[in-house]
Amino acid sequence: MIYAVIPAGGSGTRLWPLSRAGHPKFLHPLTGSAASLLQATVERLGSLATPEHTFVVTGTAHATAVARQLAGLPEENILVEPSPRDSCAAIALAAAVIARRDPTAVMGSFAADHLIGDPAGWRETVRQAARGAEQGLLMTVGITPTWAETGYGYLETGEPTGDGPLRPVTEFKEKPDAEVAEAYLRSGRHLWNASMFVWRVDVFLAELARQQPALHAGVVAIAAAWGTEEQDEVLGTVWPTLPKISVDYAVMEGAATAGRVATVPGDFGWNDVGDFHTLGEVLPADPAGNMVLGGDAKPGVFLRDSTNLVVVPHSARLVATVGVHDLIVVDTPDALLVCPRARAQDVKQIVDELKERGEVGLV
Amino acid sequence: MIYAVIPAGGSGTRLWPLSRAGHPKFLHPLTGSAASLLQATVERLGSLATPEHTFVVTGTAHATAVARQLAGLPEENILVEPSPRDSCAAIALAAAVIARRDPTAVMGSFAADHLIGDPAGWRETVRQAARGAEQGLLMTVGITPTWAETGYGYLETGEPTGDGPLRPVTEFKEKPDAEVAEAYLRSGRHLWNASMFVWRVDVFLAELARQQPALHAGVVAIAAAWGTEEQDEVLGTVWPTLPKISVDYAVMEGAATAGRVATVPGDFGWNDVGDFHTLGEVLPADPAGNMVLGGDAKPGVFLRDSTNLVVVPHSARLVATVGVHDLIVVDTPDALLVCPRARAQDVKQIVDELKERGEVGLV
Repeated sequence: MIYAVIPAGGSGTRLWPLSRAGHPKFLHPLTGSAASLLQATVERLGSLATPEHTFVVTGTAHATAVARQLAGLPEENILVEPSPRDSCAAIALAAAVIARRDPTAVMGSFAADHLIGDPAGWRETVRQAARGAEQGLLMTVGITPTWAETGYGYLETGEPTGDGPLRPVTEFKEKPDAEVAEAYLRSGRHLWNASMFVWRVDVFLAELARQQPALHAGVVAIAAAWGTEEQDEVLGTVWPTLPKISVDYAVMEGAATAGRVATVPGDFGWNDVGDFHTLGEVLPADPAGNMVLGGDAKPGVFLRDSTNLVVVPHSARLVATVGVHDLIVVDTPDALLVCPRARAQDVKQIVDELKERGEVGLV
Repeated sequence: MIYAVIPAGGSGTRLWPLSRAGHPKFLHPLTGSAASLLQATVERLGSLATPEHTFVVTGTAHATAVARQLAGLPEENILVEPSPRDSCAAIALAAAVIARRDPTAVMGSFAADHLIGDPAGWRETVRQAARGAEQGLLMTVGITPTWAETGYGYLETGEPTGDGPLRPVTEFKEKPDAEVAEAYLRSGRHLWNASMFVWRVDVFLAELARQQPALHAGVVAIAAAWGTEEQDEVLGTVWPTLPKISVDYAVMEGAATAGRVATVPGDFGWNDVGDFHTLGEVLPADPAGNMVLGGDAKPGVFLRDSTNLVVVPHSARLVATVGVHDLIVVDTPDALLVCPRARAQDVKQIVDELKERGEVGLV
């Protein structure tokens, strides 16, 4: 049994126009069932963490939606950030709040917007990581790469230190170019960094104090006021002063250099559902290879002589195609996207340009 | 000066989902300006026919829309068919009504949903046809073919009979296959049948009486009651009994065999705007070859790395494309179509299948 922390942030711009700043990726049912990615993330914990031991850290804009989607979670376990301060502040706040309750608790941090094909296998991997955490290591769960992906960061690992599956992480690697990614894939020593962490809260907070003393002092001050009359006052004063930095960059890279990070390689069908092409790869398609998200809704779709489509009929309109292939069609009430699957990554550019144009209502 | 008759029927199924049974092609501004095809058809008449000499024959569902679009036309010149009886009944009714007013009037019948690039050239051709009509011929305006089109019927012509441009029409030809169409194009004797007719109403009605006596008797009876208290009664009783047949098949083919049909070849940028690909060919495109119909409306379109598209943003939504080419994207409030330009003809099949499914609201 561990504490689970789910940072629920990020808007998933490559899933525009379905995913929006106001209704981001993790709130959408991109799971092949009615569950949202966030709900699936909590369900996946199963016996790893009780609702009382499960925390979500999210922004003010999404607090109510999170509360309604996760009706089984205690209210006080939904930590609402006054403003986005990146992942280190979010995770550190949760760690500090948990540490007030249980100073040597083991906590795992898991993104709210990923899919996992084999939840039981994932839980087993996390349990192995928890054993490393109990021994004082900052654990990551690395994904055994199955292709030379250039869109992910990598963990470079050393020789296993014992009989178990644990391996030291010697270095965090940025997203590689294609050649380097091929080399990583062949090396057998590189894992995808899926931003899953497992550690004792006291160990993490000590490492945070060493590398990011201001951030540490801030979250400890906030946690001390948590649940008291002072909470809003302290949070509102201290939070905006915290450094805006990712936990990888702020803590994990330095900890790896200091020999304090290890990993358990996992192979449980992890997917970050980063774009519509990926979504089409992960979710079940019809015999023509067309993946229709939420295709049961009326009036639905009419796909004639069309194959390998990713279709999201997300407005109450008929989506009709004739003679098109390998295409993404995302239909929402105020915006429509048509794009080849091979260009799925470029959807982010539309969002960037719409922002530049000041079309804030559309992004 | 002639009488002009504009049969305004047909729903333009290959222009679905823009064109619908309830709001058919001729009511839409597919002209590159704010004018609908119907309005452009009337404007094109110019000095050929006054509003008082211009008649529209349309169905009950479209009478009010026609009346509003053509505010300059006398009310009584909009003839409303109680039910669709194909083109022969529509044109014959107008001919019979005109004949009551002016028994030897020359009338021209022109479709409500075609585009013409050179209206002055077209008017000149119609004037030449009118001279043939005055001599007692049933005149057609044939279009000099510019490619081997398989989607049109053809007029087979004989040797010119005098010094003028008139040629006898020896036979009406159905839509040919590709090989036959190539032969027609090479022959120099075949013209596209654009269903434009010019004749004296007495000559047409006599030929109708010879070939379709029941239809003739019916429209003469209706015309006799036209504008009297009896009009609704007679129209309601007689109209449903009229044969449902096209004027080509009912009258013109037999008249050609009898040597009573002639034509004037025309070359005035005629286009039947039959499908979205054609629309993209006819209307002006941007430098990337993208034709956006009504593209000034907000929020408009966002076409990145996209070429040779036909985009109809006909709902108040952003249409965004990335990396697509030669594609049709038609966005309406209740249905979306995505289709390669090369498959533009197959849009009709969607409409047929939707009808079969009973999705009458969508067609």
